[in-house]
Amino acid sequence: MKNSNRKKQLLKKSRTPLKKTLQEISQLLQGRIIGDEKVVISGVSGIKEAQAGDITFLANARYACLVSESRASAVIIDKEFSTKNIRGKSFIVVENPSLSFARLVELVAPVQVKFDPGISEKSHLGEGVKTGTDVHIAPFAVLDKNSFIGDRTVIGAGSYIGQETKIGKDCLIYPNVSIRERVVIGDRVIIHSGAVVGSDGFGFSTVKGVHKKIPQIGTVIIEDDVEIGANVTIDRARFGKTIIHKGTKIDNLVQIAHNVEIGDNTIIVAQTGIAGSTVIGKNVILAGQSGVNGHISISDNAVIAARAGVIRDVKQGEVVSGYPALSHNKTKRIQIAMTRLPEMLKKLSELEKKINELEKKADEA
Amino acid sequence: MKNSNRKKQLLKKSRTPLKKTLQEISQLLQGRIIGDEKVVISGVSGIKEAQAGDITFLANARYACLVSESRASAVIIDKEFSTKNIRGKSFIVVENPSLSFARLVELVAPVQVKFDPGISEKSHLGEGVKTGTDVHIAPFAVLDKNSFIGDRTVIGAGSYIGQETKIGKDCLIYPNVSIRERVVIGDRVIIHSGAVVGSDGFGFSTVKGVHKKIPQIGTVIIEDDVEIGANVTIDRARFGKTIIHKGTKIDNLVQIAHNVEIGDNTIIVAQTGIAGSTVIGKNVILAGQSGVNGHISISDNAVIAARAGVIRDVKQGEVVSGYPALSHNKTKRIQIAMTRLPEMLKKLSELEKKINELEKKADEA
Amino acid sequence: MKNSNRKKQLLKKSRTPLKKTLQEISQLLQGRIIGDEKVVISGVSGIKEAQAGDITFLANARYACLVSESRASAVIIDKEFSTKNIRGKSFIVVENPSLSFARLVELVAPVQVKFDPGISEKSHLGEGVKTGTDVHIAPFAVLDKNSFIGDRTVIGAGSYIGQETKIGKDCLIYPNVSIRERVVIGDRVIIHSGAVVGSDGFGFSTVKGVHKKIPQIGTVIIEDDVEIGANVTIDRARFGKTIIHKGTKIDNLVQIAHNVEIGDNTIIVAQTGIAGSTVIGKNVILAGQSGVNGHISISDNAVIAARAGVIRDVKQGEVVSGYPALSHNKTKRIQIAMTRLPEMLKKLSELEKKINELEKKADEA
Repeated sequence: MKNSNRKKQLLKKSRTPLKKTLQEISQLLQGRIIGDEKVVISGVSGIKEAQAGDITFLANARYACLVSESRASAVIIDKEFSTKNIRGKSFIVVENPSLSFARLVELVAPVQVKFDPGISEKSHLGEGVKTGTDVHIAPFAVLDKNSFIGDRTVIGAGSYIGQETKIGKDCLIYPNVSIRERVVIGDRVIIHSGAVVGSDGFGFSTVKGVHKKIPQIGTVIIEDDVEIGANVTIDRARFGKTIIHKGTKIDNLVQIAHNVEIGDNTIIVAQTGIAGSTVIGKNVILAGQSGVNGHISISDNAVIAARAGVIRDVKQGEVVSGYPALSHNKTKRIQIAMTRLPEMLKKLSELEKKINELEKKADEA
Repeated sequence: MKNSNRKKQLLKKSRTPLKKTLQEISQLLQGRIIGDEKVVISGVSGIKEAQAGDITFLANARYACLVSESRASAVIIDKEFSTKNIRGKSFIVVENPSLSFARLVELVAPVQVKFDPGISEKSHLGEGVKTGTDVHIAPFAVLDKNSFIGDRTVIGAGSYIGQETKIGKDCLIYPNVSIRERVVIGDRVIIHSGAVVGSDGFGFSTVKGVHKKIPQIGTVIIEDDVEIGANVTIDRARFGKTIIHKGTKIDNLVQIAHNVEIGDNTIIVAQTGIAGSTVIGKNVILAGQSGVNGHISISDNAVIAARAGVIRDVKQGEVVSGYPALSHNKTKRIQIAMTRLPEMLKKLSELEKKINELEKKADEA
Repeated sequence: MKNSNRKKQLLKKSRTPLKKTLQEISQLLQGRIIGDEKVVISGVSGIKEAQAGDITFLANARYACLVSESRASAVIIDKEFSTKNIRGKSFIVVENPSLSFARLVELVAPVQVKFDPGISEKSHLGEGVKTGTDVHIAPFAVLDKNSFIGDRTVIGAGSYIGQETKIGKDCLIYPNVSIRERVVIGDRVIIHSGAVVGSDGFGFSTVKGVHKKIPQIGTVIIEDDVEIGANVTIDRARFGKTIIHKGTKIDNLVQIAHNVEIGDNTIIVAQTGIAGSTVIGKNVILAGQSGVNGHISISDNAVIAARAGVIRDVKQGEVVSGYPALSHNKTKRIQIAMTRLPEMLKKLSELEKKINELEKKADEA
């Protein structure tokens, strides 16, 4: 009983409060209303979790069926969506429902956590460290010798910035991130907790069964607007650099090996691994738990499906899946055929019998 | 030589000392003795590692064959186990050998590491932080503004507790854990080193190839008695919450994306990934390196086999394996058939030849 | 424009400067020159990234075709490589090009990051801690009660060394590593940031659907010359020990469960997982994203291919791939046959039709 009350309380707290008419919201989003412009909206929420009084949005035509099932009072949609047979709901029509909803969410969000400018007396700055204006250096953060932190950048509690490493402006480095020496990071980069940037590449030279460490004296370059997820690992190059170009977004627990290059605006979903010296293009998508061999190349706009294992070059715009990864169409056909394998095996032995009988008859004839 | 001695020393040290008769142990475990109740037991150990004088246990009927091979002097078993043909060993029969052994191990364990109550002068407590009685806050731990730590909870060295985050009673947060703002954690929760709770969900809205960050203003709720492994990542919700219900146990390096809900007493083995907005029931088992798509539902008591990749809803009690995951029986039949594929390919072309000949003969006839 | 200049600048910086004649370099490497001994070498680089004036090396006969394509002025090769048809390049012939190149790289490397001996006043040493000579204990590192750090070992910023844990000589523990209590680490061990050693094994005893924690009172032993990658997790044993024998190298994000034993000089590539109580031999290779079941044994010199999932014992020197892992040859044949599955399915139904017609004819005859 108590527990259930507690849950309800938690739920209440986790919903985002709002108090606006649909008209006010529509003006804000520069949208067009279908339905009751005077309805009062008291919360924003996902389409499944929404309660009466909430506004939600439809991002993906695939979930259109959820609109009538949702308890939301209003839904942000695009102009393609037909509201014809839906009752008891109002709509705001906009260009990009997801973006509009995001703007709304920001508006009503709980006050965002702020990191006020200032260098904590409990942090440690080595010799020769330089910092821009209005940086936030949290307690127990370490800026090692000769590192540089740009204007307004936040270094979270317990994070380590290595010797001679340079971090640009307006970056957000969350607590307990480790960035090794001589790494270069651009502006507006976000790095989540537990990520490690610039660890040694995994390189050994084996002599009589004993592995000698190959020095990894290169570095890592992270360009502007990159986001790096929690507990991601990005190794420094053997020589030269591992480089993540601007706007690329990396989810949690991804491994990027030494000397990898990743183009602009690529998306890498959780638990994906990219082996050494591979080059990945622009606007590529690597879905979750995928893997890419070393020393290959994946061209712009390619899509690597979830759990795919890529062992050869992928052409521009190609969609691949499976392991070893083939064109997605081919993989799908193989996967369907696979489900029929036991039946094929059976049929094959039936046919064999029939043929043997036919042969016997033919011989007798 | 020296090395071998050193190893032996390490081995000796790593065995757990004990000095009790079997009778004393049996009383302790409320068991029934088969064999010599006066035998002196000098150590507890696994069935394979056990030496003469050790007591061990049989948890799994699958390993019954190991009992006679083991050098242990005594074995804790359940009443199903037949000791008939086994010589030179004594037995204690109990209800649950694994639990009984665990109790024995605890008894003889090296003194457990203690974290004495106290707030280290070398920790950092922000404004408005409140702590219960007898908390242990280790050096370099950070409790950020307005966070709350319940009675007897331990916050390990270098761990970060975000603004307004609430942690219940009797929790054990190991060193270098990062918990972000506004997370709610229940009682008796254990979080291992390097885990990250409340990092941003991976959500972007792409406009002309550029990915704009969708604010992730929701939170994470971890209920009572949950255990979270080392370097696990649990993302906060876009809005609303990511929630792990009570008694669920999560192994190392697991990824749980935004808005996921996981029911009571579910087991998630290492390196598994669960994509956004998926709902998982109670007492589900997700074995190692498995993956679950976003926006699907896995019902109570389902079992997801190791390395399975689940792309559709899983029914109550269903056991699935493979990728794309199918019922385990079906997957097994497919896997067996697959091993015969090269042979099938050969047979198929042989049959084709025979049929062509038969057709020729038929035409001639 | 600006951006492109900035990139060039970064590139320049990331190349490693040198200024030596080929003769000087050859003497250094005790090699033999083919070509112009007076050419001045100004940088070292990978074969693909090399510019005019650079020296590079050919490690793998597989990439021989890259030699003539490379812009490098000189290439370090072994005696097997034929330089016959290659123009405009000079060569140094050595025993092991990779090792020779590594030596060269070390020579011209940017001054390596140094951690000067000293115990930071901002670190924390618990009661009874002992340290050898010339250790480096960085700010915010914690040496918990009765731990021991050997001569010249470096403990990075924010790293945690548990109670009674012993670390040998000349180790390099990078920032934000967590090592729990009573772990034993040998000499010259390298542990990268975010790694967790000695977290609890994942063991529960389930009674009526509720999972009771099985105490994990064993430990972890890491022998000499082991390297552990960023964000790796190595669990302590239930009792006894998890042990990594000497010279084994572990890449990033690898999971090693409780009671696992890994032999000398084994290589474990990124994102691999090894389940509990499995024993792995010497000089084994586990390629990236592979997985190994619990309670099995992988013998010396075995090779587990990338993404393989091993569910049974692997013999000495065996090469396995696929999931469930079979001998690599068998897996390859199956994979090739799989690509022909849709075609087989089609052919099977064609043959069936033909047989039915033949049967009809035979019946009519």
